[in-house]
Amino acid sequence: MYLLQRRLADFAAARGWGPYHTPKNLAAALSVEASELVEIFQWLTPEESAEVMADPETAHRVSDEVADVLAYLLQFCEVLGVDVLDALAAKMDRNAQRFPVRGPSASHRHSSE
Amino acid sequence: MYLLQRRLADFAAARGWGPYHTPKNLAAALSVEASELVEIFQWLTPEESAEVMADPETAHRVSDEVADVLAYLLQFCEVLGVDVLDALAAKMDRNAQRFPVRGPSASHRHSSE
Amino acid sequence: MYLLQRRLADFAAARGWGPYHTPKNLAAALSVEASELVEIFQWLTPEESAEVMADPETAHRVSDEVADVLAYLLQFCEVLGVDVLDALAAKMDRNAQRFPVRGPSASHRHSSE
Amino acid sequence: MYLLQRRLADFAAARGWGPYHTPKNLAAALSVEASELVEIFQWLTPEESAEVMADPETAHRVSDEVADVLAYLLQFCEVLGVDVLDALAAKMDRNAQRFPVRGPSASHRHSSE
Repeated sequence: MYLLQRRLADFAAARGWGPYHTPKNLAAALSVEASELVEIFQWLTPEESAEVMADPETAHRVSDEVADVLAYLLQFCEVLGVDVLDALAAKMDRNAQRFPVRGPSASHRHSSE
Repeated sequence: MYLLQRRLADFAAARGWGPYHTPKNLAAALSVEASELVEIFQWLTPEESAEVMADPETAHRVSDEVADVLAYLLQFCEVLGVDVLDALAAKMDRNAQRFPVRGPSASHRHSSE
Repeated sequence: MYLLQRRLADFAAARGWGPYHTPKNLAAALSVEASELVEIFQWLTPEESAEVMADPETAHRVSDEVADVLAYLLQFCEVLGVDVLDALAAKMDRNAQRFPVRGPSASHRHSSE
Repeated sequence: MYLLQRRLADFAAARGWGPYHTPKNLAAALSVEASELVEIFQWLTPEESAEVMADPETAHRVSDEVADVLAYLLQFCEVLGVDVLDALAAKMDRNAQRFPVRGPSASHRHSSE
């Protein structure tokens, strides 16, 4: 993944995109791409949403948006010097504390930070 | 990264979160986390946005949101069977065609799909 | 509604918020508030989502987010001189052309621009 | 505005869109439209963002997205029985308490809930 992060940085540098790639702009671009992913699912039932990859055109669209989200996430992390894999590993350690596994009789509501 | 993707899947499975983790819900959660990243920057100037890591509290918040975005992206890809690194590599090959590097005299506007 | 738009403009002016209220920042703030509304629903089934107003605390949260969305929308329109009611009326006229009512036997997929 | 809200409800009912218009889906659609507004501004400087209405094509795009945001906001409020103008007036009363106007010597950071 760091290889792709490097390749993205070189790609942007070669095109003189540096001035546009402020953290603020990259965060906005990331959220725009995430919304384009949401758009694919917005009118689907939960069941239909699980079947989107069966249609080649929608499958391509999903892959494309997922790629865009990761691209902007990596570029955002690049300009701010954040190691995204370290950040996620640290977060998962904290979440293991916050959401202990309960016994089989305990039902609990899904929750998120 | 695939190791983290596996660890996230196991984490969710152990907590019985499967029924909540439809592609539709995970795409929504991804966009919510991306917006929480935007929120950090929404009133900052471009210059201020480049300095957010200088403040330890904001730096932690940035890392935390970045981790959440990647976590939901990987969980989304897991449930739909999308290989996100392959998707990004393929997208970058297409982008290299769409945005050729121009000579030094050509100035061009930053563009995105 | 225009009264509230004026009141919002006076409120921001009295607090010296003008420099922060660029169209770019207000659009970002609007999208952040819209995501906070999404967050309320992200793990709910369609059926549960229809019942959110039955819980007073969630009902208050919904009202609050709805207010924030409208507040930023009106402030955005104020700084750019857009008449939002005119814009919507014009859009609805266009949509009446794009989505003609079909006869009872025709089923069609919901669509949006 | 309530007239437009009614007209939107009739429009959706005439096309059989009721089943798609769950609060959850409408909130997602609202956030998608808000992001389309953000997209217009994502690579612009604050100064450029203030000039978008000077270009007729961009001005049309802005109006169109603003209309979409209001349309989904009103439809969301319709299905949940929320009075959006009441919600905003109540919120502004609370904000007047939270953000008192300071004297001319006091500078303060723009803040939001």
